[in-house]
Parts: sequence; structure tokens; C-alpha cells
Amino acid sequence: MNITSLLPSDKLAPAGRWTGFQPFNFVGGHNDASFVPSQAFQASVSRALETDGHRLAAYNLGDGPLGHLGLRQFIAGMLHRRAGMSCSEDDVLIVSGSLQALDLVNQTMLRPGDTVLIEASTYAGVMSRLDRMGVHYHGVPLDDDGMDITALASLLEELASQNIRPRYLYTIPSVQNPTGSVMPQERRKQILKLAQRYNVPLFEDDCYSDLVWEGDRPATFYGLADGKGVIYCGSFSKSLAPALRVGYLVAPWEVLSHILPYKTDAGSGALEQMVLADFCPEHYEDHVTALTQHLAQKCDIICAALDRYFGASADYKRPKGGIFVWVTLPSHVDSVKLAKLAGADGISINPGPDWSIAPEAPHQFRLCFGYPDAAIIEEGVMRLANICQQEFGVPLAIDNI
Amino acid sequence: MNITSLLPSDKLAPAGRWTGFQPFNFVGGHNDASFVPSQAFQASVSRALETDGHRLAAYNLGDGPLGHLGLRQFIAGMLHRRAGMSCSEDDVLIVSGSLQALDLVNQTMLRPGDTVLIEASTYAGVMSRLDRMGVHYHGVPLDDDGMDITALASLLEELASQNIRPRYLYTIPSVQNPTGSVMPQERRKQILKLAQRYNVPLFEDDCYSDLVWEGDRPATFYGLADGKGVIYCGSFSKSLAPALRVGYLVAPWEVLSHILPYKTDAGSGALEQMVLADFCPEHYEDHVTALTQHLAQKCDIICAALDRYFGASADYKRPKGGIFVWVTLPSHVDSVKLAKLAGADGISINPGPDWSIAPEAPHQFRLCFGYPDAAIIEEGVMRLANICQQEFGVPLAIDNI
Repeated sequence: MNITSLLPSDKLAPAGRWTGFQPFNFVGGHNDASFVPSQAFQASVSRALETDGHRLAAYNLGDGPLGHLGLRQFIAGMLHRRAGMSCSEDDVLIVSGSLQALDLVNQTMLRPGDTVLIEASTYAGVMSRLDRMGVHYHGVPLDDDGMDITALASLLEELASQNIRPRYLYTIPSVQNPTGSVMPQERRKQILKLAQRYNVPLFEDDCYSDLVWEGDRPATFYGLADGKGVIYCGSFSKSLAPALRVGYLVAPWEVLSHILPYKTDAGSGALEQMVLADFCPEHYEDHVTALTQHLAQKCDIICAALDRYFGASADYKRPKGGIFVWVTLPSHVDSVKLAKLAGADGISINPGPDWSIAPEAPHQFRLCFGYPDAAIIEEGVMRLANICQQEFGVPLAIDNI
Repeated sequence: MNITSLLPSDKLAPAGRWTGFQPFNFVGGHNDASFVPSQAFQASVSRALETDGHRLAAYNLGDGPLGHLGLRQFIAGMLHRRAGMSCSEDDVLIVSGSLQALDLVNQTMLRPGDTVLIEASTYAGVMSRLDRMGVHYHGVPLDDDGMDITALASLLEELASQNIRPRYLYTIPSVQNPTGSVMPQERRKQILKLAQRYNVPLFEDDCYSDLVWEGDRPATFYGLADGKGVIYCGSFSKSLAPALRVGYLVAPWEVLSHILPYKTDAGSGALEQMVLADFCPEHYEDHVTALTQHLAQKCDIICAALDRYFGASADYKRPKGGIFVWVTLPSHVDSVKLAKLAGADGISINPGPDWSIAPEAPHQFRLCFGYPDAAIIEEGVMRLANICQQEFGVPLAIDNI
């Protein structure tokens, strides 16, 4: 029997065998390996197992489906201090990374044929999920401060005139992925008003917000709206370690109670929750401060390399936090083709069309700088510029001078 | 804005607030708290973080989407030794508990309107998943050795005559959930032949097979078929600790490569995989041997309590392994009502209809004995017998003597 021949005709394309990371790896939300707090984790996990190891015998440690009680208490407190949010530990659901938050919210709120709004450039995994669910999406154009209010207002009005109510407006307001912008507070208030006027819930993805290095961190939509009409998610992936798979979904219990039944995984990994519950109260703030300073330095390094090797040929806005920079090349460059050529030279980049439905996407690309070290960044960007010059005739910076 | 009022009309019923386990907790695949190897876990996690902590900075530790390479190697070797299976580490996908394996196989193989075969009494989470997907299922009647061959053959023939090809036959052959039977090898060979004749893949759930205490552990379907036409899943939840959420899905790579694209969670928790990869090579066999002996003793305790308090009123077959016993009461007893009454007295049980579509289900129930200690088992079963006597007039054992 050949199982492969019995699969549904609409099956996804099969995976290829894993061949490891490319030597010049500018994709994926990986972090800086030197900033994993391994020693503090060791101490935390020892303490946690000493006290609570026996509780691993029960699903969810016996703390119930929302997850580790102590970690939820820490998260509620941290969101109060850092993000101006008011929520109790029972408004917090621990999830296996914020991707699970996306899945749970989608399963709860969306059905095939529904319509949602997203930012015109956004996280690839959001669009691929909507595609798979048969959900339509419209992209709100972005400027340097995030979603364009006028464009959002006319999009909402146009949809309303067609009797279409978007099921949610998905936004990454702080360190927007991929543009790296941080939406000012005033803009947030305007968007909140529009969303309320058109009865469209906000789905606020705040995964990167702990990594803002420029300016104050604005209050979250959730905080500004006091949780009304907003579902919020965050993660420890970017601020601590992506391989841990610990994120959180926040909504008032009356809403969260409708999302929770879709979490049918018998709980997220408890050991990782135990470690974080012990580690975070003492170390999280200091860790994030140090990591953010380090990432800002790496951002300087990659921006300097872009300036050095691409010069005026590469247009980008220095991100205000996070781990990626979004680059626009001259309009004749095909970033999908560029990504393929770069791949053959050991360089991974995210081509624009994976991350954006904006008109400029075909000549844009995303570079992640959290994982590669300074030397790799320098050489990788140089090689990329050479490919652009050779394949697309993009003038090197040295030619521009 | 009230998000709740904007949800789809077919939404699931909202969750209630968590109120903790009942004092007499006979539900859930929890394990014995005294058998969590916390100290060995501490040593393992310290070693793993010392060596590999920095790798937490990369999704999947850089080992790719199948999961921790060392753990996959251990699993492939263990399945070879213990389950007669031949597979490489690239035929093994680490999943976040075997529930994720169910989801991935279902997403890969099933579409709404499809038909599958299950055992007439089976894991509740399987039926609820199929219900949610709009997939039809037929239950194969069970005897003391698992699926009834004659019934399976006529069911397959009947479906074939209607041009319906079941997308898979889901089976828990070793420590069948809930009946606790272990299917003899000869029966497995007959089922394999039937499945091959009708071109129906087997989905073999082997979660409990490490906990068999009576007789030899038969070869798996996967082993007998050399992987052809069989997808296999297993778990460390029952043999080590359910809160860890580490399971595995096994299929030849040509099949697994079609399942892998549906795993869009950016990897399962790496710290838990690191702990197991260090712990298992040295300790797994001894741990499982000791745990199984202990569970056999607890099984004796619950069976003795059933005999003492229910006597001839409770019909059950002593399980050959695992953590549960499946009890049949006189036909006028309504086990759903019993579960409700028991709940009011601090006792949790699984009523038959949640775990079975067999005709006897309404007067059957499942008792899990891995988690409660001897005194709780004794008192809980006594209280349950009293409720049965008071509410349904089921004679107590003492009346039978």
C-alpha cells in the first residue's frame, strides 16, 4: 500500500529533507546565541524541579488549561508594568509560542469566506494561515508610523458599503514585522476609534515589543482600550529563546473562555513554563535591557554594511527595535529571484512577496540580524550586494561615491 | 465592542473557570507523582544546558523541523529494540504530545465528509476531533483481544460495496484505551491483511505500549508491515510525565514529508526534548520497568476495591497494562448520570458515552488509577459503589455475598 497515493488532492507540497542553516542566515526569528541565559536557566530549572518536579505527573501541573499559575501571574504583572495593561492571571493563556495564539484566535473567530484586515506588509505565517483557511484579507498600507489612517478608514468604509464586516484587524504595532516601525500612541488611539466605529476587533501581536530601543514604548491597544474589543498576544521567543516555545494570549476571561475550548493539546510544555516562572521575576527586566542594547548594536552593524555595500541603491528605514530590517531595492530587482541566487551562494533572505502584499514587495526583502554575528553580517551583506550588482546591475555603493 | 457577540454561530461552548482536580480524581492520563524522575531530570537538564544552552537561540535548536536529533536517534533505537520497528531518525517527527500527532495525521489525510474506522470504544479525543472535522466514523466492535476480525471484515466489505474507502483505521492495539486489552500478534497479522486488501492505511497509536505488564509485548503493526501502509505514534506522557508534552510520529520519510508541512508551530519545546535526549539513553528502560511494576500493583488495588465494593455488580476485565480499567455496570445504570452524581461527591470518572460508541457504553465508565494513591482509590471506589447503590439500586458486594 502506498499511503502517498491515497492522500487528498489538495494536500500541501511535501517537505524537503533538512540540510541545515545556510552559512549566511538572515531568515527566521532566531536570537543571538551568546544571549541565552543558560546558567540562570540551569539554576531555575533545578529549583523548579526540586520544588515542583512531582507535579509533572499531572497534565498542566494541575494548574488547569490556562497554564502555569506562577508564570501567568508574572505575565499579568509584567504587562501591567511594561505595557500599561490591566489583566488578571485568569485573562492569560499560556500557549506554545505565539503561532499557537494565531491558530486559536483564527479557529475561534474565522470561518471560510470571512474577511480580515492585515497590515499590507506583515508576518508571512499570518497570510499562509489565512490562505489555508480560505479567509480573504485586505492589506492596510503602511507609512513610517504604521498603518495609514486615511487608507484604513476608506477600506473600512468600502467594506461596510459591501456589507462586509472584517472579523478582525491584525496588527503588530510595536516593531512592526517586517518594517520595524513603532506606532505612536496618538495613531493607536485613532485606529482604536475607527475599529470601534466599525465594530472590528483588534488582534494585537506584540511579540517584539520588549525589544524597542528607540523612544518610549507606547501603551498597547489592549491597555488603551482596557481590553475591550482587543485580543492580545506576546511571546518569550524573541526576548529569551525561540526554541522554548512559550507565548501568551491575553483577553478578558469572557472572551478567553470562548478561545480556550479550541486549545485541545492537553497543555503546553510545563518544564519550560516552570523555568520561566522561576527565571523571570528576578532576571527578565535586566535580561531584556541587555539584549535590546546588544541588538541595537547589531542593527548598527547591518545598517552600516547596507550603507557600505549598497549605498543609495538600498532604501531602508532603521528599525526602532527588534531583529530585522526591511530593504527596498530599485524597482527592476526581483527579490524572489534574488533570494534564489543568494541561496545558491549560501545566503538566506526573505523575499518581499512572502512578507507583503504591497505593490513594492517584489523588490523588497527582509534581513534578520539577531542570529548572525558581526563578521557574518558584514560578509553576507557584501556578497548580497555583489549578487545584486552582477545579476541586476544595481550599482555598488563604491560606484555611487 | 463585545467580541463575544461577534463570534461565529457554530462556536464551541465556552470553558468554565478552572476549579482544580476533584479529591477523588479517576480521569485524565495523569501519572503517579512519586514516579517522576525529578532528580535525574535535574542532572540531565543541567548537562544539556551546559552543552547546548546556546542552541536555544535557534528555532528547533538548528536541528530542523523534525526535532532534536539526539532524541530522534534514541527513539528510533528504542522502537527497534522494544517494538520490532525499523526506522531511521529521519522517519521520526517529535511532536508536542501524541495529540499533535492526531491533528497532523488528520489534517494530512482527512477532509470533511470522509470516513474512517475506529475501535468502537476508543480515546475520546479522537472522536471529538473527527466530529469537529465533519468526518464520519464507524466503530469496530472489540473483544478481549481487541478488534473483532469478522466484524471488521464485514464493515470493510459493506463500505466497499458503497464505494467508500475509509481514509484510515485508527487502533490502539497495546493497552487499548479504554478496555486495556493487548492485541495478540496473530490478530494483528490478520488485520494487516484485511487493511492491505481494502487499501486502508493503519494509524497505530502506541502511547501505552511501554506499560504492558502481562505477557510479552507483541510486535507493532508498523514493525509487522515494515512501515508500509502504517503511520505510528507514541509518547513519553504515559511512561515519564504527561506535563512534558513530548510525543513522536513515525512514518517512512516519503510519507512523513507529506505530514511535516502541516506542522506550522515552529517546532515543539526544545528544553523538554533536550532533557529527554540526555535522560533516556541511560535511564528510560529501568524507569519504565519500575513504573510498570508499580502500576500493576495499583491496578491490583483498584481491582480489589471494585471486587470488594461492587462485587458481581461491576463487570470488568483486568487490564494488561496502563493506567485505567473499563467497568460495565448493570444495564439500567446511566453512567453519564452516575458521573454527575459522583462529581457532586468529589469523584471524577469518565462516563462510557465519552469513550465509546458501543451499545453498552451508556452503562460503562472508565477509572484511571495512575494518579490517585491507594487510600484515595479505596475510598473513591467505595463512595462510587455507595452512589450506585443509592441512586440505581445496584447491590453492593456485601449484599451479594
